[in-house]
Amino acid sequence: MKKLINTPGSVVEDALRGFAAAHPELRVDAEQRVVSRPQPSAGAVGLVSGGGSGHEPLHVGYVGPGMLTAAAPGDVYTAPVPDQVLAASAVADSGAGVVHIVKNYTGDVLNFRLAAELAEEQGIQTEMVLVDDDIAVEDSTATAGRRGTGAALVVEKLLGAAAEEGTDLQTLATLGRRVNERSASFGIALLAGTVPAVGRPGFDLGPTEVELGVGIHGEPGRERGRLTPARELITTALEAIDAEQRIEGDVLVLFNGAGATPLIELYGGFAEASAWIQTRGATLARCLVGNYVTSLDQAGFSITVTTLDDELTRLWDAPVQTPALRWGR
Amino acid sequence: MKKLINTPGSVVEDALRGFAAAHPELRVDAEQRVVSRPQPSAGAVGLVSGGGSGHEPLHVGYVGPGMLTAAAPGDVYTAPVPDQVLAASAVADSGAGVVHIVKNYTGDVLNFRLAAELAEEQGIQTEMVLVDDDIAVEDSTATAGRRGTGAALVVEKLLGAAAEEGTDLQTLATLGRRVNERSASFGIALLAGTVPAVGRPGFDLGPTEVELGVGIHGEPGRERGRLTPARELITTALEAIDAEQRIEGDVLVLFNGAGATPLIELYGGFAEASAWIQTRGATLARCLVGNYVTSLDQAGFSITVTTLDDELTRLWDAPVQTPALRWGR
Repeated sequence: MKKLINTPGSVVEDALRGFAAAHPELRVDAEQRVVSRPQPSAGAVGLVSGGGSGHEPLHVGYVGPGMLTAAAPGDVYTAPVPDQVLAASAVADSGAGVVHIVKNYTGDVLNFRLAAELAEEQGIQTEMVLVDDDIAVEDSTATAGRRGTGAALVVEKLLGAAAEEGTDLQTLATLGRRVNERSASFGIALLAGTVPAVGRPGFDLGPTEVELGVGIHGEPGRERGRLTPARELITTALEAIDAEQRIEGDVLVLFNGAGATPLIELYGGFAEASAWIQTRGATLARCLVGNYVTSLDQAGFSITVTTLDDELTRLWDAPVQTPALRWGR
Repeated sequence: MKKLINTPGSVVEDALRGFAAAHPELRVDAEQRVVSRPQPSAGAVGLVSGGGSGHEPLHVGYVGPGMLTAAAPGDVYTAPVPDQVLAASAVADSGAGVVHIVKNYTGDVLNFRLAAELAEEQGIQTEMVLVDDDIAVEDSTATAGRRGTGAALVVEKLLGAAAEEGTDLQTLATLGRRVNERSASFGIALLAGTVPAVGRPGFDLGPTEVELGVGIHGEPGRERGRLTPARELITTALEAIDAEQRIEGDVLVLFNGAGATPLIELYGGFAEASAWIQTRGATLARCLVGNYVTSLDQAGFSITVTTLDDELTRLWDAPVQTPALRWGR
C-alpha cells in the first residue's frame, strides 16, 4: 500500500484537520466530527448528509451556501454514528426541521434512523431522503435494495438551492425523492482502491479486466468485463442506465472519477458519453466532469444521469459556494 | 496499462472533444488545438499558456474570465507547436499584446520563442514570462535551469486578475516574473504515471520507495527516499523549499495532487503542511488543495509556496471563472 498518510488509523482525523485548515469559512468540529456552515440562512430547513469517508469531496466538500448545512463523515467506508448525525442535525436545525440525505447502505440507514429518533426527542423534526440511484445491482453485500452513489451530489445540490428559497421540510423531502427517482448511475472499475486499515486492494482485477457495475466501496457489480476502448465501456454504462430509466429529454450528466482517474481520461470518456447521448436524441443540458464522488484510490468512472425539468434545471443553476462545487454569486 | 482511453494516439483529441462538450462557454478549436474565451475583455492584454497535455486541468481548465485568454495543449508531455501557439496568440490579442506564460522546458521555450517571432511579423506584441519554480533540481533531463511546475497556476491566476484591470503588457510581464521569483515548488512521487503511447510507467519505484523532487513528467528528482509517514515527506518538501526561499510572512500554498492521489490523502497531507507553516511562524494566508497540476496517473503530491504581498493577495482574491478555478462573481 503506497499512500500519503501518517497511519491507517489517523486518516479521517488527519483529513479533517487539513480540511479545517484549508476551509476556515466552514466550522469543523473535530471531536464530534461534524462539518457545518457557520451561518445557515435564517429559518431555512437544514440539510444534513454523511456516510463513510473515502468518497471525498462527498460529503464534507459540499457543505456551504446553496448545498449542505452540515455533514457527518464516518470512518473510512463506515457509517457515521447516531450521536454524530444527531450533533450535525442539531447544528443544522434553525427550527424548520432537517432533511437527512442518506445513501442506501444498511449501516447508514440504521444510524440515520436512530439519529432521527434522538433528534425527535430534542424537538428536531427530520425527514429522510434515501438515495438509491445505482442501477447495477438490486440488493448487494451492503444494502437491501439499490446502492446510493453519484445522485447524492445531485440531491444535495438541488435541495440546497430549494432550501435557500425557504422551501418547507415536507416539500423538500418530496423534491429529494423525486430527484432520486429521476436519477440512475452505473460505475466501472479499472483498478481497486485500498482501504488504509486493510492495506491491500479491496478486490482483484486482472490486467485486462474491469468490474462492470462496481459499487463505491468496491462492491461487486454485475460481472467482470474486458478492458475495451473507452467508447465501449461508456456505451455499456449508458445502455445499462437507459434500460432502467430511458435517457431522453434534458439530462444532467455527472461523469465522475473514482478517485485515481486523471482528468485527461475523464474528459476523454465524457466525449463518448456526450456523443452517445446526442445520438440517442437526448439533450445534454448540464454536466459535471471530475472526481466528485470517489472511492479512495479506485481507478475508473461512474455515470449518473438525472432527467431534468424546468424546476430542477433552475435549482441546478442556482448559486452554490462550497469547497468542491461553486458557481454563481 | 489500464486507462480509460480509446487508443493511445487519440488521447488528447478525445479529451479536447470531451472538454468542448463539457464547457460550451469556451471556444475549442479542435483543428488548431486552441481553447479560448469567446469574449475577452476589450482592450485587455491577452494571456496565453500551453504545454504538453497530461497536466490537466493545467492549462485548458484555466481559460476564462480572470485567468487565461487562450491555451495551446500539445501532445502528451510534448510542447505545443509554434503555429498552434501563434493561433492562440492571434485569438488572444485585442491589440494590447499577449503575455506567453511558459513553463521552463527546452521544447516549450523554443516553440513559444518561434511563435513570438511569427506573432511579431503579424503585428502582435508578445512578452514571455518563464516559470521555473521547481527547486528540486538545477538543470534536468528536459530543461536548462529549473523546471516549471505548480507556479504556472499561480502566475496565470494573478496575471489574469491584473489583465482584467487593464494592466499593460510590460507591467504584466514584470508582475509575472515577480510572482515566479516569489514561488518555489517541490514534488514527491509515490507511483509513476504512464504515458499512453509508451504503455508502461515512466520510472520504477519499489514498494517502499518514493522519488524526492520528482518533475511533472516523472523526471528524476534529487534521490530515492523511503515511503515514510506523510508528516515526514511533507517536512522534507517544505524544508527543501525553505532552504531555497525562506517561508515567512503571508504565504499562498498550493497543495497539489499528481493526478491519481485522492482528495482524502491530499487533505491529510495538507494538515501537516499547514501545521509546519504555523510552527515556522509564517501565515497560511491562502491555499488550494486538490489535483490542479497533474502528471497523468502519477501518485504523489507537490507543494508550491508563493510569498504574498498586498497586491498579490488582492489579485488572488479577484473573481475567476474557469472550468477548474472559480470564485467571486
